[in-house]
Amino acid sequence: MSKQEIPYKIYLSEEEMPKEWYSIRADMKKKPAPLLNPATLKPLTADELSVVFCRELVEQELDENTALFPIPEEIRNFYKMYRPSPVVRAYCLEKKLNTPAEIYYKFEGNNTSGSHKLNSAIAQAYYAKKQGLKGVTTETGAGQWGTALSMACAYLGLDCKVFMVKCSYEQKPFRREVMRTYGASVTPSPSDTTEIGRKILAEFPGTTGSLGCAISEAVEVATHTEGYRYVLGSVLNQVLLHQSIIGLEAKKALDKYDIVPDIIIGCAGGGSNLGGLISPFMGQKLRGEQDYRIIAVEPASCPSFTRGKYAYDFCDTGQICPLAKMYTLGSGFIPSASHAGGLRFHGMCPTLSELYDQGMMEAVAVEQTSVFEAAEMFARVEGILPAPESSHAIRVAIDEALKCKETGEKKKILFGLTGTGYFDLVAYEKYNNGVMSDSIPTDEEIAKGWATMPKVDL
Amino acid sequence: MSKQEIPYKIYLSEEEMPKEWYSIRADMKKKPAPLLNPATLKPLTADELSVVFCRELVEQELDENTALFPIPEEIRNFYKMYRPSPVVRAYCLEKKLNTPAEIYYKFEGNNTSGSHKLNSAIAQAYYAKKQGLKGVTTETGAGQWGTALSMACAYLGLDCKVFMVKCSYEQKPFRREVMRTYGASVTPSPSDTTEIGRKILAEFPGTTGSLGCAISEAVEVATHTEGYRYVLGSVLNQVLLHQSIIGLEAKKALDKYDIVPDIIIGCAGGGSNLGGLISPFMGQKLRGEQDYRIIAVEPASCPSFTRGKYAYDFCDTGQICPLAKMYTLGSGFIPSASHAGGLRFHGMCPTLSELYDQGMMEAVAVEQTSVFEAAEMFARVEGILPAPESSHAIRVAIDEALKCKETGEKKKILFGLTGTGYFDLVAYEKYNNGVMSDSIPTDEEIAKGWATMPKVDL
Repeated sequence: MSKQEIPYKIYLSEEEMPKEWYSIRADMKKKPAPLLNPATLKPLTADELSVVFCRELVEQELDENTALFPIPEEIRNFYKMYRPSPVVRAYCLEKKLNTPAEIYYKFEGNNTSGSHKLNSAIAQAYYAKKQGLKGVTTETGAGQWGTALSMACAYLGLDCKVFMVKCSYEQKPFRREVMRTYGASVTPSPSDTTEIGRKILAEFPGTTGSLGCAISEAVEVATHTEGYRYVLGSVLNQVLLHQSIIGLEAKKALDKYDIVPDIIIGCAGGGSNLGGLISPFMGQKLRGEQDYRIIAVEPASCPSFTRGKYAYDFCDTGQICPLAKMYTLGSGFIPSASHAGGLRFHGMCPTLSELYDQGMMEAVAVEQTSVFEAAEMFARVEGILPAPESSHAIRVAIDEALKCKETGEKKKILFGLTGTGYFDLVAYEKYNNGVMSDSIPTDEEIAKGWATMPKVDL
Repeated sequence: MSKQEIPYKIYLSEEEMPKEWYSIRADMKKKPAPLLNPATLKPLTADELSVVFCRELVEQELDENTALFPIPEEIRNFYKMYRPSPVVRAYCLEKKLNTPAEIYYKFEGNNTSGSHKLNSAIAQAYYAKKQGLKGVTTETGAGQWGTALSMACAYLGLDCKVFMVKCSYEQKPFRREVMRTYGASVTPSPSDTTEIGRKILAEFPGTTGSLGCAISEAVEVATHTEGYRYVLGSVLNQVLLHQSIIGLEAKKALDKYDIVPDIIIGCAGGGSNLGGLISPFMGQKLRGEQDYRIIAVEPASCPSFTRGKYAYDFCDTGQICPLAKMYTLGSGFIPSASHAGGLRFHGMCPTLSELYDQGMMEAVAVEQTSVFEAAEMFARVEGILPAPESSHAIRVAIDEALKCKETGEKKKILFGLTGTGYFDLVAYEKYNNGVMSDSIPTDEEIAKGWATMPKVDL
């Protein structure tokens, strides 16, 4: 163990930034189950996927055995604008908690998009550009992904069409304006610009939309417009691959000071941040080189890991996307209007689902008032206003540090701070005014979600 | 000249962070004119100032000859949470402009307060705590200073009372909530909690307030409440001293790669950022060691340097604060409702005013639509959404880089990027929608402001 003093922030130099992404799947003996074509119920082929996604991304999606994928130089140059991002030693939080534990966090909010989403957005935009496409389409709910993608497309001179869930479009005008500042077109969904949008509007006049509907519109436009493809900010293997930069940098930074974390914590919605953060650590664990406690934190209002089924399910409410085997609450499950918009997906990325099923990681569900309590404490002592999503990880990091206080253990805790909460002040206002409540789905509500799952036994 | 490749971001290590602040005044042969007591028209004494400000800050304010002030360890530890901040080589902007110039910026937005204001907020809060005070009062308009001070006070366990100009309080609820999240009490000004507030409310029912009024309320509460003092985020010598950390770090980072800037550019409202950024460079210039072009950029809507008078004037509309000799448009000058709220002060810090008067720096006024044009270009290629205030410096940096493109000169340009624009999306929305306009005061409007200046010849 090095006796060197650990700084507040451990930065890597640009030369030390990883030059390859790492795919967890390469080290998994039992691989995640493949995506299925909802029509044929057979594994999707590269050709089928290429109608929706860029070719090189399809290859990344389907490749189960390659461990290291070179990061193209143009992407690395973009990364240099905001990466390597620091691992921060939370000295002030430790002092506040009076814990013997050491707390570290990998901070991914140091870019205008405000979150880790940019790591994959620039990669997906790059491959679209390389393929000679004109633009990409996507959907956004909370807005972090849409913001990141707009920024990446602006950089590469690629058109970007974002379908934004109508209620977010209206309630989060600032998110909308950031995207527009980056040159994206932002359409409230459902819209009359797509067939499926018009159908939904006719069926449910006055609806404020849903992520599932926005996905359907984005996919429709991508597949019906010459030179366009659809891109997605989470769930997929390709996204986990790009996000591995988070964990690779974190591990390299910790290694510099001989720090081996005992516990690694990340919030989990679709799984992009958690999968990225844990990847090299999970790789070691899969190869039997090192053991870590790995904890996925999800909102009690949308508890796919802790209360979901591990089964094939639709990825979208409209049921037009591929079937994925994952922990799921059912594509018809409607989570309460919590303030962690990025954690409201009914399912979980198949790779993390398989790892969870194999007992390689734990999961815990937390309630939003306790999450904001942790967020406020963190903001006051660490000087970063955390996103509600990220604050789920903060909550559990604090809980684990408090356990160490009781036992006297000097555990090393690493968590992922995925982004900042500048666009979540409505939620903070509710918390400040004491009018935030918790909402935990009943068993009946979850059963209702499951009722929408595929009827066939897969 | 080193042949070493210059990285995108030049970081200093925590050990390299300056341990002393530097005061420009020590190297000025002709010192700035002293603050005067508005009642006696005599220079304010330490005892008089100590009623309003903390004792140690008063000493810093009045000390004209000390060059280096040790930064207390507790402040340095706080700084380590977000400092040293990087000097960024704007490779992507250079490429976009196709300029032979090298563009560098010192980025101060990497903390939750979102701006450089935190550098002085933590210092002022620290001295208040050290003096055994219970709390501090202040005013805020755009909200950057109030946010920074709230954060600093939360860290030190100090009470923080912010008077927020009523129209900002209502139009910027998110800024208000950030301050509340940090535990500050935020009162819309004018309020019925102070004598002067009640007086103004009686005289102007329904007024939405002004910075001058908020200052008066904050000063009244500080001087009438046991254990409180007033703190201010710009204009004063003490603030320039604390902000010198910006320039000291910038110079140290550039020195690492043997980079000597030809032009140094900063936006100027009260002068806190500009004064901090240029301090060590101006020190060299004053000592005759090195020459630099130094450019202050101000909004055409509030052009104190370029169209103001150099004379003694009131610092607040209420005319209860000390008189300062500065470039001023008159305390009665009402700038148009531009979107750079941090640059709407009618005067300019006395130290910078004196340096400008001595011909040590230039000033240029720019219009806000051209500022937002620069902001948008910068955001798209550099990946940081800049604050409207900071974007004034971006505008002139781009203009200078474009001149280099014409002449083929490889000038090195350094500018200060003071903060992020997350809370300024209303302004970006106006720009995106093409409904932003420029507003340049007429000579008559400026004359009207001057009419409120002290009648005596000082």
